Amino acid sequence: MASNNPAPPDSTRRSERSRRAIYDAAIALVVEIGYPKTTIEGIAARAGVGKQTIYRWWGSKAEVLLEAFLDLSEQAARTAAQEREDREGQEGQEGQEGQEGRAGHESQGIPDTGDLAADLKLVLRATVDELHNPAFEAPSRALAAEGVVNEELGRRFVAKLLEPQLQLYVDRLRSAQEAGQMRPDIDPRIALELFVSPLAQRWLQYTGPITYAYTDTLVDYALNGLAPR
Amino acid sequence: MASNNPAPPDSTRRSERSRRAIYDAAIALVVEIGYPKTTIEGIAARAGVGKQTIYRWWGSKAEVLLEAFLDLSEQAARTAAQEREDREGQEGQEGQEGQEGRAGHESQGIPDTGDLAADLKLVLRATVDELHNPAFEAPSRALAAEGVVNEELGRRFVAKLLEPQLQLYVDRLRSAQEAGQMRPDIDPRIALELFVSPLAQRWLQYTGPITYAYTDTLVDYALNGLAPR
Repeated sequence: MASNNPAPPDSTRRSERSRRAIYDAAIALVVEIGYPKTTIEGIAARAGVGKQTIYRWWGSKAEVLLEAFLDLSEQAARTAAQEREDREGQEGQEGQEGQEGRAGHESQGIPDTGDLAADLKLVLRATVDELHNPAFEAPSRALAAEGVVNEELGRRFVAKLLEPQLQLYVDRLRSAQEAGQMRPDIDPRIALELFVSPLAQRWLQYTGPITYAYTDTLVDYALNGLAPR
Repeated sequence: MASNNPAPPDSTRRSERSRRAIYDAAIALVVEIGYPKTTIEGIAARAGVGKQTIYRWWGSKAEVLLEAFLDLSEQAARTAAQEREDREGQEGQEGQEGQEGRAGHESQGIPDTGDLAADLKLVLRATVDELHNPAFEAPSRALAAEGVVNEELGRRFVAKLLEPQLQLYVDRLRSAQEAGQMRPDIDPRIALELFVSPLAQRWLQYTGPITYAYTDTLVDYALNGLAPR
């Protein structure tokens, strides 16, 4: 979306307020009528902007929705982090606050305290919180469902939203390999799926409850293996 | 769907041919126009039967589709098994034929040769073949996508189709625990997700290629763990 030309005067009018209205309209429409029926025209009407305003900034409804969803994910992550901090504050678990603060949103990287299991559990618990955020659930399900049957959108969703998050796990696992906590012959990009994908499948397909105990168990099983040691 | 009353004379007319026509019509419609727009009336018209014929045998379009899909899955599994046998026959890998014959379709249970890794790899390779079957892909994606946004359908899909398959892994892992090949404190229902869910997520979300090498790696990582031994 970035242009090589100098920013035109119009770009200064891309106010936070219009951007927010367009994101909100896009998310609301995909939840209410589904991805296939959501159009640029519909988003513009609901946001109270001209459709040329949207076309000036985005090339397609997929781009609008992906950015809107990225924004929503960041909001959900912030809300979940805040709720977790509040909850832990009430419970008086002050010892973990430093870690929580560092975890923040996954996009800022996975913490590296030197304890791989603890760091992974912390981040997966944050993801559990995000998945339980009602504001996040309907739009993310609508977009994920469309991605299942719409390969182009599915691949863009992965490239823009999912893979960057997975790469944070790759970074953390590489660090664990350097620290001798993970076998050097293991491919981190596959390894992360042992604890990330089960959570994703439970969420996508309702195959089981999503709890902290569950994600903690996934990390323990993945790190230690199922076979006797 | 089974009645406690003696089968009425009409039930004898539930011929294989009508059943097949209804399944085919249901699958074709959900692929072409999607789950929400598919109706009993539409299925009946396309199958060339009266809609009362469908209502006599099934309570809702969800039930028709789930049975049609179960039937399709069994067909896809048979096709995949046959292709695998043909391929291995050509490659002259006669030593594995006995195992293949036992594996057949997952619904007949996961083989137990005493070698847990080999048995799991065999069954997951069969699943890779099924996922690559074009006849299976579009309808299974249509139904899976609807399940993501339609919790009731999603849960029925799991209860009727997915969980019975997962329970076969539970049985095989319990057998491994009894044989001392898996730690006794491990919950098999969670453990199976370490190798099943990554494959599911790659298929649902296009997060990576689906190959035998990939599923073999998942089994090795899950059994041996990521941490140094």
